[in-house]
Amino acid sequence: MAAGVSRSGAIVLVGFMGAGKSAAARSLATARGGKRALDADRIIERRTGSTIAEIFERDGEAAFREIEERVVYELLETASPEQVISLGGGALASKRVRRALDRHVVVWLDAAPSVAWRRSSGSKRPLARERGAFEALHAQRRAGYASVADAIFADAARHSIVAASAALDQLRAAPAGTKLIWATSASGEYPVWVGNGILAAGLWPLERPPSRRFLVSDEHVAPLWAEALGEFDARHLVAAGEASKTIANAERIWHELVRAGMTRSDHIVALGGGVVGDLAGFCAATYQRGIPVVQVPTSVVAQVDSAFGGKTGVDLLEAKNYVGAYHQPAAVIADVATLATLPAAERAAGYAEVIKTAIIAGGSLWQRVASNAPLDEQVILECIRCKLAIVAADERDAGLRQVLNLGHTIGHAIETASGYARYRHGEAVGLGLLAALRLSGARALRSEVEGLLAAQGLPTRADGVELADVRLAMSRDKKRGPAGVPMVLVERPGSVHHGQIVPDDEIERAIAELLAAPGAGRPAAPARNREPLRARG
Amino acid sequence: MAAGVSRSGAIVLVGFMGAGKSAAARSLATARGGKRALDADRIIERRTGSTIAEIFERDGEAAFREIEERVVYELLETASPEQVISLGGGALASKRVRRALDRHVVVWLDAAPSVAWRRSSGSKRPLARERGAFEALHAQRRAGYASVADAIFADAARHSIVAASAALDQLRAAPAGTKLIWATSASGEYPVWVGNGILAAGLWPLERPPSRRFLVSDEHVAPLWAEALGEFDARHLVAAGEASKTIANAERIWHELVRAGMTRSDHIVALGGGVVGDLAGFCAATYQRGIPVVQVPTSVVAQVDSAFGGKTGVDLLEAKNYVGAYHQPAAVIADVATLATLPAAERAAGYAEVIKTAIIAGGSLWQRVASNAPLDEQVILECIRCKLAIVAADERDAGLRQVLNLGHTIGHAIETASGYARYRHGEAVGLGLLAALRLSGARALRSEVEGLLAAQGLPTRADGVELADVRLAMSRDKKRGPAGVPMVLVERPGSVHHGQIVPDDEIERAIAELLAAPGAGRPAAPARNREPLRARG
Repeated sequence: MAAGVSRSGAIVLVGFMGAGKSAAARSLATARGGKRALDADRIIERRTGSTIAEIFERDGEAAFREIEERVVYELLETASPEQVISLGGGALASKRVRRALDRHVVVWLDAAPSVAWRRSSGSKRPLARERGAFEALHAQRRAGYASVADAIFADAARHSIVAASAALDQLRAAPAGTKLIWATSASGEYPVWVGNGILAAGLWPLERPPSRRFLVSDEHVAPLWAEALGEFDARHLVAAGEASKTIANAERIWHELVRAGMTRSDHIVALGGGVVGDLAGFCAATYQRGIPVVQVPTSVVAQVDSAFGGKTGVDLLEAKNYVGAYHQPAAVIADVATLATLPAAERAAGYAEVIKTAIIAGGSLWQRVASNAPLDEQVILECIRCKLAIVAADERDAGLRQVLNLGHTIGHAIETASGYARYRHGEAVGLGLLAALRLSGARALRSEVEGLLAAQGLPTRADGVELADVRLAMSRDKKRGPAGVPMVLVERPGSVHHGQIVPDDEIERAIAELLAAPGAGRPAAPARNREPLRARG
Repeated sequence: MAAGVSRSGAIVLVGFMGAGKSAAARSLATARGGKRALDADRIIERRTGSTIAEIFERDGEAAFREIEERVVYELLETASPEQVISLGGGALASKRVRRALDRHVVVWLDAAPSVAWRRSSGSKRPLARERGAFEALHAQRRAGYASVADAIFADAARHSIVAASAALDQLRAAPAGTKLIWATSASGEYPVWVGNGILAAGLWPLERPPSRRFLVSDEHVAPLWAEALGEFDARHLVAAGEASKTIANAERIWHELVRAGMTRSDHIVALGGGVVGDLAGFCAATYQRGIPVVQVPTSVVAQVDSAFGGKTGVDLLEAKNYVGAYHQPAAVIADVATLATLPAAERAAGYAEVIKTAIIAGGSLWQRVASNAPLDEQVILECIRCKLAIVAADERDAGLRQVLNLGHTIGHAIETASGYARYRHGEAVGLGLLAALRLSGARALRSEVEGLLAAQGLPTRADGVELADVRLAMSRDKKRGPAGVPMVLVERPGSVHHGQIVPDDEIERAIAELLAAPGAGRPAAPARNREPLRARG
């Protein structure tokens, strides 16, 4: 729906043929009280007394589109809030229809072309006769669905639409432009809210009360954003920064959870960046063997990556994220308004993670990022969808999910080697990305990425770091198997390969290249925080 | 197979009709190299030129059994180790057949009567025409299958038989009487080895090397049993007792795992009672977000309950098991030989958990226990099967699994109220069981259980414990919801109900009754360890 219009209308399902709109609409209508779902294609067939295939055959597509526009427009104009409507795959070609969608809650069922083809071919659908044309049409229509969608369900989430019913109603009062994405994985599903101003609008994904809330945040973020989230039953704030991701802090939080009388019916709210999300998520994963956590990421890295997918944990002195658990959030709220309160350097560092995601995703996200797109809701949304698609396919890093480690294997080692003090996580990921692209033999792309990093003021050389320290950290990488540490290598944006074992000497050369002067690296002094991790709490 | 005979023969599947033997045999035969599975019923049909239904119809069951005995005996006498054979449901009626099974690896597919009926009724099977008779026959034949089985697969595990192929071969060299049970749950499956002398025989369920092993054990158990397990790459021993189940100990273990260079390809071995199993399991669950753990339970409670089902965790000062995770073991070895090295009082305390399990299971296990059966392999095996069936149906305590809390809700509160110092876990469970039976209104059963506890020398009164302290501990029970703490109540052995909210005053009366003198409670001094938990490590 368009900005500034309240979504008081019906729930309208859109998407390509074979996405499962009619079946989903029927389930949702039944769950919402039994009013029958309205299927635009069936209504057209009833009114004309012909099947859609017959109309196409006899009168041509243009004639069908004319009838369709009339029927759908009328349907949308008269629809009441308790109705659930499904539209044909091509209905959005009409500007009148697109405009009439403004007051409705529009749900996009986004099936991959291969899935849609499997379901549509062999049917009587006139536009599903030849696979090449079918996939071209699919690609062409995606932008249209994306532009009107309030809620997005990838195919794996299709059967969750009933579970999402209350969240769809919450969209009615959400700020203009807010998107709801339904995340799925082997161990759970949850709503993801993406937009600008969600927190200020007071939207909250879980019922409260009776569920009590315990806030975990840091001393930078809490003063800025905690108030927008309303009252908490108890809270624990940590110092900002990676040094807070400790077992000692987890232990403090566990004790405070007990003191606050938190039970499995209550929930934790993680308000902050990746450190807060990982720490609070780990406490939620392990307190009473698991209570819900709502992730409210406020940094770029957290919004595009770490808040999703359920990886939680704390650092040991020896290495990052060595103690942790998988625990999917109960909900995520990614409000880009919070990014405006980040220090510019932090925001820039986060952009490295965006570049990484864009290389993995390829397509429209890479195009945006390669042209130095600003960090807006659209970029964040596309990054989130890329991450969620990967986690949906492989929650536990058995295969595909490993692609997300692109740039992280060497990036983490650089962070460790520099005592987590010299480089921000995103800066280290940017450096790791350059090393990974070198190992991939992707020279041109490496130059392009170097340019993108430099444009953000991010380091492209790692100075003040010892090769021996990086080597030691790599030797402790928790992905290491008997053959070595599997790397993610890049063929081109959109085509990356995980599980690539690279000889240690090649890795060393790629790292050494980063360490070598002369460079645009951060000057040796004054570094942000030179205190080594070992000396910390 | 019988004691003292090596299992060098074929793999033979037995079980009731409808258990899926033929299909499982085919899958297994294919996976083991392609030699075709031999199906006794099909061989009979080929040899006689009649279907089994026709033979029954024409010549009667006795005539069929005669043919069957001949065919099956010949099959078993000539079968080679690479063969997989499935027998008809009634083949074990013949003593000759039972004896001929001695040299084979016998796998029992144990489907519940309702499942077997669903698959068999409507077929042409002559003995599946009337449900009552069918179920009676099922009940009658179970003991026969149980007596010959080396490996047991509940219906949920049936499709895992291929995954179990290597384990079935390990049975060939296992000590006589060793049983393999295949455990399943939503998050994983694993072999469970039950027997006498398994450790001494050197059986190990995971490949080694390349998988490296890290031992977690306690100072009592390790000197007795660690050597039997062979070499370890590193080890961490804790003091025996609940006081070791701390975050501080978990942290020590995490650091030592790093120092030993443990990766996700390696595994932890938890050798000990529930404390070691929970602590080591929690470290395995969280180190690098999860590495394999082999549970080698050496106490009664661990062998019948805590080693299975994946609940891991440590205590907080304020309450037991408040920090933990679900993490299914990679394998469990329950060697009853280890129980012989337990102090008599520990073994007795464990019996309380056996009584609890028997009340939940009912049937033959309850009959054994109610007649004061000794704690032998058969009792342990039946307890394990009861626990595994419950976890298979409900891993995460969403419903059924809560029945396992029978006696534990009040038992835990008594442990907490007495600073984990006065009563052994099993003793507290026995007391909690009495309180739960009081709340259930099961007076006669309560008396019977009181007698069983007393016969083991276990307390039936809780003295030296303050009602107010028990009340406080109950108020912090992590199962507590807005309505109160859900209790497990008993209708009769084999029929227990979870999620029963009982008014607080009734619970207090049931606890007060335990506290009231005069009783057979443990004398106030000298208690085992009066140091309160707060003062510990």
